[in-house]
Amino acid sequence: MRTQVGIVGAGPAGLLLAHLLHLAGIESVVLETRSRAYVEERIRAGLLEQGSVDVLTESGLGARLQREGLAHDGLELRFGGAGHRIDLKGLTGKQVTIYGQQEVVKDLIAARLAYGGPLRFEVADVAVHDLETDAPRITYTEGGEARVLECDLIAGCDGFHGICRPAIPPGVLTAYDRVYPFAWLGILAAAPPASHELIYARHERGFALATMRSPTLSRLYLQCAPEEDIAAWSDDRIWAELHARLARRDGADQVTEGPILQKGITAMRSYVVEPMRHGRLFLAGDAAHIVPPTGAKGMNLAIADIRVLARAIEGFCQGHGSDLLDGYSAKALARIWKAQRFSWWMTSMLHRFDGGDPFEHKVQVAELDYICASRAGAMTLAENYVGLPLD
Amino acid sequence: MRTQVGIVGAGPAGLLLAHLLHLAGIESVVLETRSRAYVEERIRAGLLEQGSVDVLTESGLGARLQREGLAHDGLELRFGGAGHRIDLKGLTGKQVTIYGQQEVVKDLIAARLAYGGPLRFEVADVAVHDLETDAPRITYTEGGEARVLECDLIAGCDGFHGICRPAIPPGVLTAYDRVYPFAWLGILAAAPPASHELIYARHERGFALATMRSPTLSRLYLQCAPEEDIAAWSDDRIWAELHARLARRDGADQVTEGPILQKGITAMRSYVVEPMRHGRLFLAGDAAHIVPPTGAKGMNLAIADIRVLARAIEGFCQGHGSDLLDGYSAKALARIWKAQRFSWWMTSMLHRFDGGDPFEHKVQVAELDYICASRAGAMTLAENYVGLPLD
Repeated sequence: MRTQVGIVGAGPAGLLLAHLLHLAGIESVVLETRSRAYVEERIRAGLLEQGSVDVLTESGLGARLQREGLAHDGLELRFGGAGHRIDLKGLTGKQVTIYGQQEVVKDLIAARLAYGGPLRFEVADVAVHDLETDAPRITYTEGGEARVLECDLIAGCDGFHGICRPAIPPGVLTAYDRVYPFAWLGILAAAPPASHELIYARHERGFALATMRSPTLSRLYLQCAPEEDIAAWSDDRIWAELHARLARRDGADQVTEGPILQKGITAMRSYVVEPMRHGRLFLAGDAAHIVPPTGAKGMNLAIADIRVLARAIEGFCQGHGSDLLDGYSAKALARIWKAQRFSWWMTSMLHRFDGGDPFEHKVQVAELDYICASRAGAMTLAENYVGLPLD
Repeated sequence: MRTQVGIVGAGPAGLLLAHLLHLAGIESVVLETRSRAYVEERIRAGLLEQGSVDVLTESGLGARLQREGLAHDGLELRFGGAGHRIDLKGLTGKQVTIYGQQEVVKDLIAARLAYGGPLRFEVADVAVHDLETDAPRITYTEGGEARVLECDLIAGCDGFHGICRPAIPPGVLTAYDRVYPFAWLGILAAAPPASHELIYARHERGFALATMRSPTLSRLYLQCAPEEDIAAWSDDRIWAELHARLARRDGADQVTEGPILQKGITAMRSYVVEPMRHGRLFLAGDAAHIVPPTGAKGMNLAIADIRVLARAIEGFCQGHGSDLLDGYSAKALARIWKAQRFSWWMTSMLHRFDGGDPFEHKVQVAELDYICASRAGAMTLAENYVGLPLD
């Protein structure tokens, strides 16, 4: 089998790339080891920058997003028992939209299938070859049969644990890594959200975040130890901890309890490889970088990568040479490092560091005080949160 | 001997307090263990926020400051071999002024002596007593004779190594401390400044700062190890290191060499005690808090403390009760923590951390890139550097 672009991974990055290439008249094949049901139900990130909404809408994927997405004009920082609203819309003119990654994935799969674009779920043994030649190949098995996909280019969109990044020879990539000394315990609960906007809480007991998936589905997070045993967290203990960390001086913590539908622990890590390319293999999204979830940047970075990569591939496939492809990594990384810095900063400012000294604690609070008291301070949070300009 | 306010220490804090109290008709005595020549020549901080200039000018101390101070509209951040100007005046409408702490001290001593205000140099064995009563006392010796100064209030303005803070009983104060893993090697050189504004340089070899005392006197600093042996730094080595760290890609580093008049090593530390009061003893300036010099906040914090303390003492001595005195510590600390955060941030962003990992290094550069590329980012530096509003 032959195609122009072989895409490994059917997450938001791979599926959006296939979609944008299709709109430009470029053929691709998407290979995914998981089932369609799995990727459509996998709960991950849930917040889209306005720039990401624009990319999806402009490529014809906005109908359900406009209908079901929850547009937010602000967020709350809660510390010292008081809430402080950051007026994202007022400061930047932009909004963010709550819309689960799995919903983006469903929309992209539906679009792909509607025009009959090749999308193979549940393939196995995926491997990439001949990356340094003009004719790279992907081998895999499907229904027990070995297959070969010949390509002009390969896009590695297979996430942090995928096979594409490790297929690059040792010495080519430089990795930048920060593992945080805590994780997030997250729940999905059938309960109305604590607030109509997100609440980021800094508390002596640790960070907490109250967000949502819909007007009847809450998503709530608690900072915990990285080695935390989820079995030690009964529903009662989780709710008690959420009430404590989101408590306000006036007594109203606003957390509404409900049946817990899902529980899980998410590690916190900052990771980047440079460059995001080797020969004819291009990495995008989590395959090249991950951020701690505090800044809500994961899915947005994947979409921003793909926007740059899709244009570069279009230029290449339409015979305009490889300049854009050659510039892809540097262009994507400029944005990625801004988002990494922001995610690291939000994480550092809001979490409890057990090794931290009392000075660090006071500086954290001084930083939050400053952000809430200074227009410029609030703007540095707001303009990064809603997303820096895409170009 | 009796006075209304006993002031320990004739640095900028103690002398300014005596001056402001005099203007309000309140008597004080200033006690200093060093000689007049020593305090007038002691080279320390050298940058005044506009608010500090205003305090000095409004209290009649502005004549020489206006004549000899060098007003700056901006500063330069230099990293990756390029300079990026932060337009302090354009962003905030305010300037900063280069005017050495010893010049402020000279002006204050001259003013004090002109009206015959008590100011005793070279006293010894200073101790404070009965702080928890309405009649605190200071004992000291002068010319070999033991003396007692009876006061209504005592101001501890005797710096970080002074006797006032340690005189407060254990358990009263909470100390917040951060010792940085580096120091500054500073020189004073008879050479024109590298630039008409300050240059803060982040370099792989470590931080460097090019500032000045006058159009013919340069003040230059190099990040070094805290245990650095100054004897290991020949003049040639110092200049070579300054050229290397301030180098620009275009080859022009602008550093002009000249005879080195003074060399010294300054430790880098953040330190705050809370509260800044015990009974009738009030701490101000370095006696209560020190900042790393990166943010140029040391003398400005002392002046801001004194402005608040002088008003509070006026209120008290004029029979308006102790409300302002009781609020002094909290009011001063609110400003101090903002300046501590800023100084810590500037220090963290610009210095080389030997224990730092490559991720930290990239985040530092991403932060500098962001500050220089975003108006809000630049504003957070500028508004703190020129000084947040005094009230």
